[in-house]
Amino acid sequence: MTDQRFPAEVYAERLAGVAAHAERAGVDAVIVGPGPDLEYLTGSRASTFERLTALVIPTVGESWVVVPRLELAALRASAVGELGIETRDWVDGQDAYALALQGVADDATVAVSDSVPALHLIPIADRLRSFPRLATPILRTLRMVKDDAEIDALRRAGAAIDRVHARVPQWLVAGRTERDVAADITAAILEEGHTEAAFVIVGSGPNGADPHHEVSDRVIADGDVVVVDIGGPVAPGYNSDSTRTYCVGEPDASVAERIAILERAQQAAVDAVAPGVTAHQIDAAARDVLAAAGYGDNFIHRTGHGIGLSVHEEPYIVAGSDEPLLQGMAFSVEPGIYFTGEWGARIEDIVVVTADGCEPMNTRPHGLTRV
Amino acid sequence: MTDQRFPAEVYAERLAGVAAHAERAGVDAVIVGPGPDLEYLTGSRASTFERLTALVIPTVGESWVVVPRLELAALRASAVGELGIETRDWVDGQDAYALALQGVADDATVAVSDSVPALHLIPIADRLRSFPRLATPILRTLRMVKDDAEIDALRRAGAAIDRVHARVPQWLVAGRTERDVAADITAAILEEGHTEAAFVIVGSGPNGADPHHEVSDRVIADGDVVVVDIGGPVAPGYNSDSTRTYCVGEPDASVAERIAILERAQQAAVDAVAPGVTAHQIDAAARDVLAAAGYGDNFIHRTGHGIGLSVHEEPYIVAGSDEPLLQGMAFSVEPGIYFTGEWGARIEDIVVVTADGCEPMNTRPHGLTRV
Repeated sequence: MTDQRFPAEVYAERLAGVAAHAERAGVDAVIVGPGPDLEYLTGSRASTFERLTALVIPTVGESWVVVPRLELAALRASAVGELGIETRDWVDGQDAYALALQGVADDATVAVSDSVPALHLIPIADRLRSFPRLATPILRTLRMVKDDAEIDALRRAGAAIDRVHARVPQWLVAGRTERDVAADITAAILEEGHTEAAFVIVGSGPNGADPHHEVSDRVIADGDVVVVDIGGPVAPGYNSDSTRTYCVGEPDASVAERIAILERAQQAAVDAVAPGVTAHQIDAAARDVLAAAGYGDNFIHRTGHGIGLSVHEEPYIVAGSDEPLLQGMAFSVEPGIYFTGEWGARIEDIVVVTADGCEPMNTRPHGLTRV
Repeated sequence: MTDQRFPAEVYAERLAGVAAHAERAGVDAVIVGPGPDLEYLTGSRASTFERLTALVIPTVGESWVVVPRLELAALRASAVGELGIETRDWVDGQDAYALALQGVADDATVAVSDSVPALHLIPIADRLRSFPRLATPILRTLRMVKDDAEIDALRRAGAAIDRVHARVPQWLVAGRTERDVAADITAAILEEGHTEAAFVIVGSGPNGADPHHEVSDRVIADGDVVVVDIGGPVAPGYNSDSTRTYCVGEPDASVAERIAILERAQQAAVDAVAPGVTAHQIDAAARDVLAAAGYGDNFIHRTGHGIGLSVHEEPYIVAGSDEPLLQGMAFSVEPGIYFTGEWGARIEDIVVVTADGCEPMNTRPHGLTRV
């Protein structure tokens, strides 16, 4: 493994997997644009927007890549060169869509990756007789189930973010702003082995009641409950994501009691994880504990999301999803409770489904940490 | 103007413009996803991916916004609240697409902004009888022609990046790496008033021959030609983008001569700018000078791109484009010459089309700067 990607044979196997799944789905060709799907399949981190870059995987025959000539050099760091994938480069003024579809019949059934923007999808569709469908069901089948190398990367990511959480208490001091604390955490995320601090949420007091609050200039006060939700990628691109809730000084008795219930809810969801259980059932396991205690309405988001090359990916652990869990799936279990204008709390670990349960990637204590 | 956006009435006018242009184009409703189009129309910098956020502008009647409940707070900083635009929030498990299309007939002609990903476009399309078209022609008409407030922001951005280029010579010293130099430039971009260093290209020696090289650990040597292409946004989000070519010590005579030709090519393109001239003609003005001198094959990209809330946007100054320039359009004029394995050079200014020519946003000397 280079620092940037897995060995080429890993990608060759994944590409073959896409072709096989596409055939079963009745799809003639899969078109993958820049984004985590392209990175998963080739190790390429191309990020062109207005100029088309696309990997085309036909069910029959060899794949090819369409790429602006300007981006050729960047593509070479991926497995595309080593695998000898045909590369069709183009320059401004050429019809990149025609080039991409050379070898695809105009009556073909084409599937596209979910990140392909309308800017490219519509011109591609205009050259086909029937509108493309989403390749998500094909790609998710592969991407959701992590192989050993991926699980190893997630384990390293989990350990790295656990080391950051272990250091958080020293920075959470009354009188400092959320932004000050976030700056220390950002530096620690990098120091502990991440290649990037992808997100740093420090939600103190009432800000913790907004699950998507990031940071602000609010000064942390004695008695504040503080939600710290942090993560980022480790080489070759797999993400950590872990939330702990802290209290500056002594919490109110009712706060401690409610967070103990949240802790039970999170544990109930983790305990429910096993192959064959549905995403809905995991969500319900956490939600039922909170609802039984009277806090159902305070849990205003889904229980979790898949994680890997993306921080958020399939499977989503959400009410109504009959997605059955499979060994190797990786996702967050992160129930939260939110009291608008007052405070919030969330506990989040990443878990990987094993043969008979799950392995948590995070091992820090779950309860309210007094600092 | 707040620091983050223009006054609400600016957005009200733009929204009315979209409805008017949509009606002329035979479109019943325009759907705009997160990205520069949404920022242009509401001041919102929403950036949700897997959860749908969309502004729907019907030709008849009032607009509405669909937004995940989690993102409601962020949306309030935009003009959506002040303008009283109907906000339809949704939670995980709800059908956000049905919510977005409530009020749009299933046989409507719908146009979508170019950044809407396949993930959302295909489910939207599935709920309509005919496939959406691109809203780009509608939105570009508005976005390409900058109003006075936008031109003022571009002027401030241009002056800010000029101040950075004025400081570059002190950092370009033999023995330092491209990365060292880029770090100094990044800090200066922020110091001189940008809210972000969107891109910093330092291409020394052979790296300058790759137009999309960013930075590397290459150590800059005496005699190196160095391409420095830098920019970023100033409040409320309008970008700078300027390239100058430097030489560490004395250049080879043939280098100086070729860069003088490049300077003539860039000036010829700038001189050609006026309302009614086509984008192709501007590209040709630069290309012809280089071709006549025998360097046509060394100019391997288009001459320029529009700029505003995006670093790259319409109009593209490219061969074959019959787009006629209009007063108020803003774009880069950036011919370059590239000698693989040896060196490269590029000169780039942003210009805004005036009644009878253009106003450059950048005023630094164009020629090779010896440092």
